[in-house]
Amino acid sequence: MKKERITEGSEVLLYLTPRRTYLVKVERGKSLHTHKGFVQLDSLIDKEYGTPIASNTGVEFYALDPTLRDYIFKTQRQTQIMYPKDIALIIMFSGIGPGSKVVEAGTGTGALTTAIAHYIKPTGKVYSYEIRPEFIQTAQKNLERAGLEKFVKIKNKDVTQEIDEKNADAVILDLATPWLVVPHAYRALKGSGTIVSFSPTIDQVVKTVEALRENKFIGVETVECLLRGMQVERGKTRPETLMTAHTGYITYARKSTEKIEKRKG
Amino acid sequence: MKKERITEGSEVLLYLTPRRTYLVKVERGKSLHTHKGFVQLDSLIDKEYGTPIASNTGVEFYALDPTLRDYIFKTQRQTQIMYPKDIALIIMFSGIGPGSKVVEAGTGTGALTTAIAHYIKPTGKVYSYEIRPEFIQTAQKNLERAGLEKFVKIKNKDVTQEIDEKNADAVILDLATPWLVVPHAYRALKGSGTIVSFSPTIDQVVKTVEALRENKFIGVETVECLLRGMQVERGKTRPETLMTAHTGYITYARKSTEKIEKRKG
Amino acid sequence: MKKERITEGSEVLLYLTPRRTYLVKVERGKSLHTHKGFVQLDSLIDKEYGTPIASNTGVEFYALDPTLRDYIFKTQRQTQIMYPKDIALIIMFSGIGPGSKVVEAGTGTGALTTAIAHYIKPTGKVYSYEIRPEFIQTAQKNLERAGLEKFVKIKNKDVTQEIDEKNADAVILDLATPWLVVPHAYRALKGSGTIVSFSPTIDQVVKTVEALRENKFIGVETVECLLRGMQVERGKTRPETLMTAHTGYITYARKSTEKIEKRKG
Amino acid sequence: MKKERITEGSEVLLYLTPRRTYLVKVERGKSLHTHKGFVQLDSLIDKEYGTPIASNTGVEFYALDPTLRDYIFKTQRQTQIMYPKDIALIIMFSGIGPGSKVVEAGTGTGALTTAIAHYIKPTGKVYSYEIRPEFIQTAQKNLERAGLEKFVKIKNKDVTQEIDEKNADAVILDLATPWLVVPHAYRALKGSGTIVSFSPTIDQVVKTVEALRENKFIGVETVECLLRGMQVERGKTRPETLMTAHTGYITYARKSTEKIEKRKG
Repeated sequence: MKKERITEGSEVLLYLTPRRTYLVKVERGKSLHTHKGFVQLDSLIDKEYGTPIASNTGVEFYALDPTLRDYIFKTQRQTQIMYPKDIALIIMFSGIGPGSKVVEAGTGTGALTTAIAHYIKPTGKVYSYEIRPEFIQTAQKNLERAGLEKFVKIKNKDVTQEIDEKNADAVILDLATPWLVVPHAYRALKGSGTIVSFSPTIDQVVKTVEALRENKFIGVETVECLLRGMQVERGKTRPETLMTAHTGYITYARKSTEKIEKRKG
Repeated sequence: MKKERITEGSEVLLYLTPRRTYLVKVERGKSLHTHKGFVQLDSLIDKEYGTPIASNTGVEFYALDPTLRDYIFKTQRQTQIMYPKDIALIIMFSGIGPGSKVVEAGTGTGALTTAIAHYIKPTGKVYSYEIRPEFIQTAQKNLERAGLEKFVKIKNKDVTQEIDEKNADAVILDLATPWLVVPHAYRALKGSGTIVSFSPTIDQVVKTVEALRENKFIGVETVECLLRGMQVERGKTRPETLMTAHTGYITYARKSTEKIEKRKG
Repeated sequence: MKKERITEGSEVLLYLTPRRTYLVKVERGKSLHTHKGFVQLDSLIDKEYGTPIASNTGVEFYALDPTLRDYIFKTQRQTQIMYPKDIALIIMFSGIGPGSKVVEAGTGTGALTTAIAHYIKPTGKVYSYEIRPEFIQTAQKNLERAGLEKFVKIKNKDVTQEIDEKNADAVILDLATPWLVVPHAYRALKGSGTIVSFSPTIDQVVKTVEALRENKFIGVETVECLLRGMQVERGKTRPETLMTAHTGYITYARKSTEKIEKRKG
Repeated sequence: MKKERITEGSEVLLYLTPRRTYLVKVERGKSLHTHKGFVQLDSLIDKEYGTPIASNTGVEFYALDPTLRDYIFKTQRQTQIMYPKDIALIIMFSGIGPGSKVVEAGTGTGALTTAIAHYIKPTGKVYSYEIRPEFIQTAQKNLERAGLEKFVKIKNKDVTQEIDEKNADAVILDLATPWLVVPHAYRALKGSGTIVSFSPTIDQVVKTVEALRENKFIGVETVECLLRGMQVERGKTRPETLMTAHTGYITYARKSTEKIEKRKG
């Protein structure tokens, strides 16, 4: 995000429309083939980000500096997609920022890992658990692509069995059985640390909330986020016709050092 | 967020329920008066965060380490409230992170400023514009409370007239007439830099989108975010009865260095 | 709805604002006391509906002919409120109309009963089950007020034990344990008849859907309806700030005469 | 909706899944061709509604009695689709029922007309305006298919010029320029009668609301309805992944006989 000009080796987001973008690495002699013709990538070298570039058929693209959101969108292939809206809320509810120590599971293809690493750098660290070895290489590659690999340690371990870390600022979960991780998360967190869990089904939410309440977590809340696009044009403005109706529920809570008798909340 | 124990001078969030929390500074001899009795704050000194503490009437609170969200919620008084859900999305859509150079307007009481500063520290900088002098002192105080003042320069200038900075990673707007800032934002941004604007009314959105399209911004999109809480209890789980139906629309776009003829998006 | 002028004995909706309306019966010598003064109701006699009328303090009200929605809103006191949005969808999904034979339970204060009766008159009939005797009198009074009592038979019976009717066009349920009624509903319905059930919690929905699938119902679907108000004013148009986030889920299905092996839907 | 058995000439909804249904007329020697093989329709004669019937490839359909919703869904081809959720709310907000006199425009393919006719029969009447002659025949055919033609008079006239009727209970509008109809609607309505207008864009809403306020209508409100489906399965229950994000806004109001100075609402 800091370079001012595109160089050999730069990652570039070639933008055609909001729904048609391509994340590519600029290399000498390389071109990108699209349904609108091919684009000579080396002609971008030494150009400023934001510059237009034409394909061989005369269609113009823009060469943008990829943001976190672009990396997140472009590197999710093999698993359930994690949406930027949910990642944004998870980061906010977790309370993390530069310098935070975060435990995450499961890594998957590393979309959420990438986001956490982006926000805790340059002095924080992510410990990301994944039991499926086939995902680890993909996640590692995606982190490297975004230049964030040095802020993450991916561990091929079962987080439902144990968490090695102590005094973590936050534990962030996106896996099938978050309730099994709750007792380990309690031990891994610092006092008043935050746990955030993302789950698609209501059954997962109920089990997770129960585990949190039983394990001295307080301030347990669950929300869902609906994002609706607008079609904006003078005299014709209206919401978009279709939207994503559900991705998942976000549950968050904070660690108390000692649980008091349950009170009316 | 880094201290492990509460000390004299620490900010503490006294938690009673998710809707009843108090942001206080721990000082010798000081106590907090609530509808559940008063709490002796100096008894918290040297305690771990997350610890319970009883009021004189025996009601227990928890002493939590305030997160960004707590500072945001607790420091908004004089202006329209900015919600964490919107702040989270604005941060995500802006693409910023540690090290980013950000122009923001208007400062208001500093809720959004606090969030931006939290995410761009320790090496980034926020330039925040505010024409109303009465807000600047409040914002400054709120930033200091969150320990973020050194990452922000508040400027008592009219952002609709001019932006001094160049090569900014992002311009973030929460003011009544964002469309008047768009040409200045264009000049202040680096190539492919991001603009994000938050507005409550559709009319503001239409004017802002038109200004963006006329000023060589691409990828212009507008969204709104609906956050719905869940009441989670085995056998009785259901969405909450009431919700905030509208806060504002978020419009974002990216700077191209040269505008091509309009295409179908 | 058919009278053109207000007469002695007419029900009138005195309208002050969309949120301040009063359902009153016009009688000689009677007046309505409000926080804006009192209104002499007999001065309305022989006036056209829609006419303004001033209180003794000079505040003007409008005398409207009550619609179904007004009766529904104004007669719900003792139980969980049933919203017009849900009633509208229940009526639509049930497929009923003038002439339909409908079984309903529980009656409660008769809001949904009133709506069903309104739409099946003048040749249809509602059989409404209620086990709590204290509600029956209220419901009966509310039906009389809306002039719909002759289209309804309220039965003080437990619908989870038995439904007496056969060949019903629809069975409509708003009670705590709809799944217990499903087998009785199956027998009460004509072939291809419709069942519609309204429930606040997800657990109720799951149990009801399971009962429907086990009892030869097909086309089982569950939806929820979110209604959001708009503040409309040129240059300031925006959604309203607050909304009802949840009332209940609507589940509907149709009776097949014979169930085939489960297929992918 | 009243026949108990299928006869020659009956309309039948052949149901495969909630998203795969076929509205057909049963005739001797006729069969329906689907991607799951063909179904001999005359084998349905004398069967009860709700009966299963196999295609020649052994796939089973159910022969349902079409409801209003089925007719509405199945007869919309040439124009913007009108959804049952919106039709249901329009009917509710209009206050109409059996016996109502309703003016409607534009007719289009008759989906909303069909719904209004369904609810005002057997003693009410719909006067439906349509300027495009090519739609009138389609609408007429769709009304006949649903057996509702005798309750509707379609008029090939421009409703923005004039409404012939007087003393209508409701005026229901689904056309591009509802604000042009408002003054005519005022004259056509009885005192305290209802106007309901459906429009996709915010600009249409603003103009319509302004026209209503200028024309002695009171209780002006605008809402939008979001319908979200649920995937219900024990242990896996969750909202559906996609939903319709927008169809249109519903604006409704009531006629006062005399407008008082504007008050705070």
